[in-house]
Amino acid sequence: MQLISDQIAGYVERSSWIRKMFEEGIALKKQFGEDAVCDFSLGNPDLPPPASVKDALLELAEDADKPFFMGYMPNFGYPDVREKLAAVVSKEQGVSVPADCLVITCGAAGALNSVFRATLGPGDEVITPTPFFVEYGFYCENHGAKLVPVPARELTFELDLDAMDKAITDKTRVVLINSPNNPTGAVYSREQLEGLAAILEKHNQGRERPIILLADEPYRFLAFDGVEVPSLLDIYDYSVVCSSFSKNLSMAGERIGYACINPAMPGKEALIGGVTLTNRILGFVNAPALAQKLLGKVLGSTVDASVYDARRKAMASILDNAGYEYTMPRGAFYFFPKAPGGDDVKFCASLTEEKVLAVPGTGFGRPGYFRLAFCVSEDVILRAKDGMAAAMAKYK
Amino acid sequence: MQLISDQIAGYVERSSWIRKMFEEGIALKKQFGEDAVCDFSLGNPDLPPPASVKDALLELAEDADKPFFMGYMPNFGYPDVREKLAAVVSKEQGVSVPADCLVITCGAAGALNSVFRATLGPGDEVITPTPFFVEYGFYCENHGAKLVPVPARELTFELDLDAMDKAITDKTRVVLINSPNNPTGAVYSREQLEGLAAILEKHNQGRERPIILLADEPYRFLAFDGVEVPSLLDIYDYSVVCSSFSKNLSMAGERIGYACINPAMPGKEALIGGVTLTNRILGFVNAPALAQKLLGKVLGSTVDASVYDARRKAMASILDNAGYEYTMPRGAFYFFPKAPGGDDVKFCASLTEEKVLAVPGTGFGRPGYFRLAFCVSEDVILRAKDGMAAAMAKYK
Repeated sequence: MQLISDQIAGYVERSSWIRKMFEEGIALKKQFGEDAVCDFSLGNPDLPPPASVKDALLELAEDADKPFFMGYMPNFGYPDVREKLAAVVSKEQGVSVPADCLVITCGAAGALNSVFRATLGPGDEVITPTPFFVEYGFYCENHGAKLVPVPARELTFELDLDAMDKAITDKTRVVLINSPNNPTGAVYSREQLEGLAAILEKHNQGRERPIILLADEPYRFLAFDGVEVPSLLDIYDYSVVCSSFSKNLSMAGERIGYACINPAMPGKEALIGGVTLTNRILGFVNAPALAQKLLGKVLGSTVDASVYDARRKAMASILDNAGYEYTMPRGAFYFFPKAPGGDDVKFCASLTEEKVLAVPGTGFGRPGYFRLAFCVSEDVILRAKDGMAAAMAKYK
Repeated sequence: MQLISDQIAGYVERSSWIRKMFEEGIALKKQFGEDAVCDFSLGNPDLPPPASVKDALLELAEDADKPFFMGYMPNFGYPDVREKLAAVVSKEQGVSVPADCLVITCGAAGALNSVFRATLGPGDEVITPTPFFVEYGFYCENHGAKLVPVPARELTFELDLDAMDKAITDKTRVVLINSPNNPTGAVYSREQLEGLAAILEKHNQGRERPIILLADEPYRFLAFDGVEVPSLLDIYDYSVVCSSFSKNLSMAGERIGYACINPAMPGKEALIGGVTLTNRILGFVNAPALAQKLLGKVLGSTVDASVYDARRKAMASILDNAGYEYTMPRGAFYFFPKAPGGDDVKFCASLTEEKVLAVPGTGFGRPGYFRLAFCVSEDVILRAKDGMAAAMAKYK
């Protein structure tokens, strides 16, 4: 008898090729040794958490024998942590954010799902530029809504504002952007974002419900060469910023993040109350107690971003050496070069033959490219030089 | 303009009377002092975590400066923790459970939602006895499904098997039970559970998809007077057990639990794979890394259940003294007495006048009763004696 729903059975089927690839990688490492394989497939930050995390955890442990040490707290999080987070978010966004505009969540994924649950219903649409983080599609479908992918510009991956304008329908509830971007490393300029805001404002005329502009910003801390990562909070009133501490504190497995509802949003209390409720009823209940307490002690710390910059340059020189076509990432820790020959799945197989692991653009809704994650040591990057060149040579 | 969906706006409206009550309690404590109010409204365990938790956390902190300390792990959890959990669950359930039948989740709420996401679709039905934990309704509706409440027997809150049999339709996908029960303290007997299994097996004949029997068991460790809490794993093949460490380790805010898919379930791999996937795509991604590591070190520890038993007896004597009608709870930390006068909302207001806080049965889908949580110190229980009697006196 069938145990799971048709939809989930379909998901398992669809996602099995990514798993297959992951398993291929494991097999490759087993066969040739960890050190023989250059794995650029995963966005799992390899830097240790800042030293402050260890100190904070030792301090926290001292209270672990007290009642309510890990008890329930308000669904939006510990009030004192929320206050501290408000100060940090205000600084990062350059906009004064009061604590009550924040809901502390189980990572950015928890924040996005809570915002979606509060705003989306069956048949609603969410627009996002491609390529995109593959989970976005699932997050929409969790709530009966549909992701509407709109291709970003070739190679630069800037927003195609005309195309986004045309994709908006009466069912569009949310436009979701991710800058600095996974998988492209693009950072949208102020001009682009202002253009997008103008389009949304035009569409909002006469609508009963405004289009929410939702920013997924876990890579905000990681922008290179001094590039500006503009805040949406002073560009568009109906904006929500979600983020996490997965990358800047190397806490990806700990699941801690937040949703920040624009303090300038008319009627914002309804959305804040809605997201606090959906955070609860989706089963998150609240962000993990320990992680919140930890955050209260280490907020403002961050891993050393210069390490990522050095790796970026090392990876760029290897791509240049082999003749790949790509845009230098302005943020995050990914390259998204063109796949030589045009078939990204085939090209990634060629890379695998050279013991280099990358993810085909198809996995991000954008065939013809492939993703290299450089959250690995510079050694691994340098070791990939010959393999990257050899794979390219097959297509020349 | 409206920011949130109609459904969520309705939820906020509906849940506001519980919040109102909670706020009334805060106001009462402010006015008369913490010590003047007897608060039995919240199921937030007041016992400190076992001493092993502090030691484990200190030990863990030593590794907090290492790469991947809180990095991603497989979505089902750290393999070594899963192995240890399998040993503990096997012992608790009296059935050998291999590690690969477990998905470590963000609390039981995360487990329930992951199982629901994997099995339910729009229009599907979930049967549960009333009274029930109020979030169950939301959890079903998260996935477009509907909770179908079936009243348990008056006062004893045993399952009404005939009524459950009749409530099953072609759309029934899941029967959800919670034993030891919140809010009644009932523990279902082996005979009752075998009767339920027989009914489900009868309905499964000729169906394409079997009815899943889902057990929510965070109170399994808390059964009094040696009463048996039978395992469903050897009673019904299509069963799934969800649980958490919120109560037995006083970690309610930390969000750690699991789903255990019956090793005897035909084709179980599809459900295990499905739940692992839905745990990810719902945005949980994985259970918090720190909590998992902590669990790996303290599994098998538990708070002192005898403390709860003493409180239970203290509360019973106060109820007896005032002449309330109730069934002695056989597990968990709740009493669910009849509301004198029959109107539970009105009666709880009378209790509030006496500075005693309780939750009306209406909040659990069962008017005419009220819930008292005895996860508070014995002092508070003893102090409630006069107030409980005075409220009762108004209805004699």
